[in-house]
Amino acid sequence: MSRLDETHDPARVSWVEGADGHPDFPIQNLPLGVFSLDDAPRGGVAIGDFILDLAALADSGLLSCEAQEAARAASGPELNALLEGGGAPRRALRRRISDLLSDPAQRERVEPMLHRTNDCRMHLPARIGDYTDFYVGIHHALNVGRLFRPDAPLLPNYKHVPIGYHGRASSVRPTDAPVIRPSGQLKAADADPIFAPSRRLDFELELGAWIGGGSGLGRPIPLAEAERHLAGLCLLNDWSARDIQAWEYQPLGPFLSKNFLTTVSPWVVTAEALEPYRTAPEPRPAGDPAPLPYLDDPTDRARGGFAIDLEVRISTRKMREEGIEDLVLSRSHARHMYWTVGQMIAHHASNGCDLRSGDLLGTGTLSAPTADGFGSLLELTRGGAEPLSLPNGETRAFLEDGDEIALSGRLSAPGFVNLGFGECRGRVVAG
Amino acid sequence: MSRLDETHDPARVSWVEGADGHPDFPIQNLPLGVFSLDDAPRGGVAIGDFILDLAALADSGLLSCEAQEAARAASGPELNALLEGGGAPRRALRRRISDLLSDPAQRERVEPMLHRTNDCRMHLPARIGDYTDFYVGIHHALNVGRLFRPDAPLLPNYKHVPIGYHGRASSVRPTDAPVIRPSGQLKAADADPIFAPSRRLDFELELGAWIGGGSGLGRPIPLAEAERHLAGLCLLNDWSARDIQAWEYQPLGPFLSKNFLTTVSPWVVTAEALEPYRTAPEPRPAGDPAPLPYLDDPTDRARGGFAIDLEVRISTRKMREEGIEDLVLSRSHARHMYWTVGQMIAHHASNGCDLRSGDLLGTGTLSAPTADGFGSLLELTRGGAEPLSLPNGETRAFLEDGDEIALSGRLSAPGFVNLGFGECRGRVVAG
Repeated sequence: MSRLDETHDPARVSWVEGADGHPDFPIQNLPLGVFSLDDAPRGGVAIGDFILDLAALADSGLLSCEAQEAARAASGPELNALLEGGGAPRRALRRRISDLLSDPAQRERVEPMLHRTNDCRMHLPARIGDYTDFYVGIHHALNVGRLFRPDAPLLPNYKHVPIGYHGRASSVRPTDAPVIRPSGQLKAADADPIFAPSRRLDFELELGAWIGGGSGLGRPIPLAEAERHLAGLCLLNDWSARDIQAWEYQPLGPFLSKNFLTTVSPWVVTAEALEPYRTAPEPRPAGDPAPLPYLDDPTDRARGGFAIDLEVRISTRKMREEGIEDLVLSRSHARHMYWTVGQMIAHHASNGCDLRSGDLLGTGTLSAPTADGFGSLLELTRGGAEPLSLPNGETRAFLEDGDEIALSGRLSAPGFVNLGFGECRGRVVAG
Repeated sequence: MSRLDETHDPARVSWVEGADGHPDFPIQNLPLGVFSLDDAPRGGVAIGDFILDLAALADSGLLSCEAQEAARAASGPELNALLEGGGAPRRALRRRISDLLSDPAQRERVEPMLHRTNDCRMHLPARIGDYTDFYVGIHHALNVGRLFRPDAPLLPNYKHVPIGYHGRASSVRPTDAPVIRPSGQLKAADADPIFAPSRRLDFELELGAWIGGGSGLGRPIPLAEAERHLAGLCLLNDWSARDIQAWEYQPLGPFLSKNFLTTVSPWVVTAEALEPYRTAPEPRPAGDPAPLPYLDDPTDRARGGFAIDLEVRISTRKMREEGIEDLVLSRSHARHMYWTVGQMIAHHASNGCDLRSGDLLGTGTLSAPTADGFGSLLELTRGGAEPLSLPNGETRAFLEDGDEIALSGRLSAPGFVNLGFGECRGRVVAG
């Protein structure tokens, strides 16, 4: 069974200047997004430092049949209609665009449909019906658990249930949206609560999974079919106010501590582009309970994971003023998921809950097992008790105004070119 | 300050047959909804046992200015565009419709735009951007807390924070959607979890608040302005699988135990129609902490509550076969809210989270202090330990296949006619 085709060929090159060897968007990636110049938002495909305009492409006469319908479905301000078609229209569009961008004979006709990314504004790729955030990063769950329950860091359900909760769809934004410091109820141990700006503002390193192809209410999705509903991945920063969270979260979970902003990288790296980077998920530690049958499938065990290196960088206002480059805070990997994206989808629909195209599923924080790969300041500073030292003498327990956090991801597999997601970045401003 | 006008006049009568004295929809109500015959869904207004077609009304030439724009905004399959306008267009439309339906001279022109409700299918009134469920029913919180923490039933944050969490928008349905029994992970005390149909399926008696007029990201809503964002109310049944909930909910809150279905009454009883039934909320018990300033406002204290009697009825399959009428399980009242709808809105936006028109906020279960007014079977049967006896000899700890639960609400105020919400009903079917 090979789902690889010529679009994945590492030898394929593009006539688009700078696309070959581009760190994120060589011709093997071709992610989907929504952009605008000073006009109406519409679908586009990233190639190098350019965006191919799908509305223009749909009008060009260069497409036919399924690829033409797919480009038409992507010509509006949201990709939901394209995503609803599932994998077939995405694949048809990808194959045709890969041909057009690699064939020098097409350059004259296609080049006028390219816009410089720097001239464009990026939007969310889809209207998000519901945003769900999971908690599949087991090292994150362990680290957080140790802070509060040193003797029993992992709750008894963790290795049976892919824990998740509903997040807020309205406040998901593409990269570079300002991170307005939220105010909320803060409570010191022996004091009454006050309403004040959060003092423990944090980031969380996550992946986001876009749903393409919905399911009906009352119709569970078997794990063997779950990935048919995966349109693609993005980076996701689940900004968190730890002080608001600590006081509000019992008994119904995080709420205002999270829903002031969630930042995503605006490009959907499609399930097709991800093919060469599929891998077995991290094995379950010996002695762990076997997943219940609805969460157990041989294909998911064989290729449910992703070969993605993840990185978090920080730059403070002072660092920028001093001309100091941003600093890597953390290096992790998508392998650190106790549950796969397929298991997240199958579990979500296991009670009959309906998924819709354009839904967004976060993985939860993907921390590595060691401190250089922790995916939040809560973990990196042990709850703020051990502030980080920055190269210019500053220290950080939590984020200060002016701090900028950037997530990045690198897909790599032997024999294939590297791909990326583009930026997922945000700078903290006072509320 | 009077926000009452001729549309609230109890002496106003309608030429529509059966509207005067109608238990839910006399001319003083005029709720907004979306209906269809065998054609495209569109906005409508309930009057007695009929629906006034807003798309037809917009085409009729009977409206002008703001009322005409409002009807046009309500001519499509979702009322979001109308709701986005806030109170002014709703009021203009209400006044004009009230005139048209009360003036016998208009009967000939308006009557062709009425459809029998029984011939229509009801849809959700709006595209729900986000659904948030609160926990403001303090007697419910106490009852549930007593089951798990007899010594400290109320968590320390309850009287400071209007506790809420994000629900699932995709699975909200209008009345009469089948309640498909969900399956999920169930765990007995000393056994491994299994995946099986829920054995502890429950209802929850709630009100829902529809948001009309959004707020921007990073822009908190002061409590004094919160109700400008309230479009109206509905009944809401937050179906719950208690066994799934017990095992999954730590540490991030309820998820699959709730998101398989939420049923609402399909009519938005508007903020304008609610005016005569505004009342002071239940006073905070002596000694309770004062709300923090952002949750404290004199107008909210004076009229933040609603005079709404609430009722839950059950009919089982056997009861229906035996011709036995449905049985009242519970009688409660909207006064049993520790936090008002205004406080829910102000709290929700206090961190800068953006609200959007068409968002739905549930109150949480509104139990009365005494057992005849408990709003869920969990409370009525003390966690299933004391099953209810039905008149035909059946007993119920939790819901069985074939059971039907109906919520109803009655708005009443001295000197005004009674209004209602219509049905909020669901029948349990096997998964």
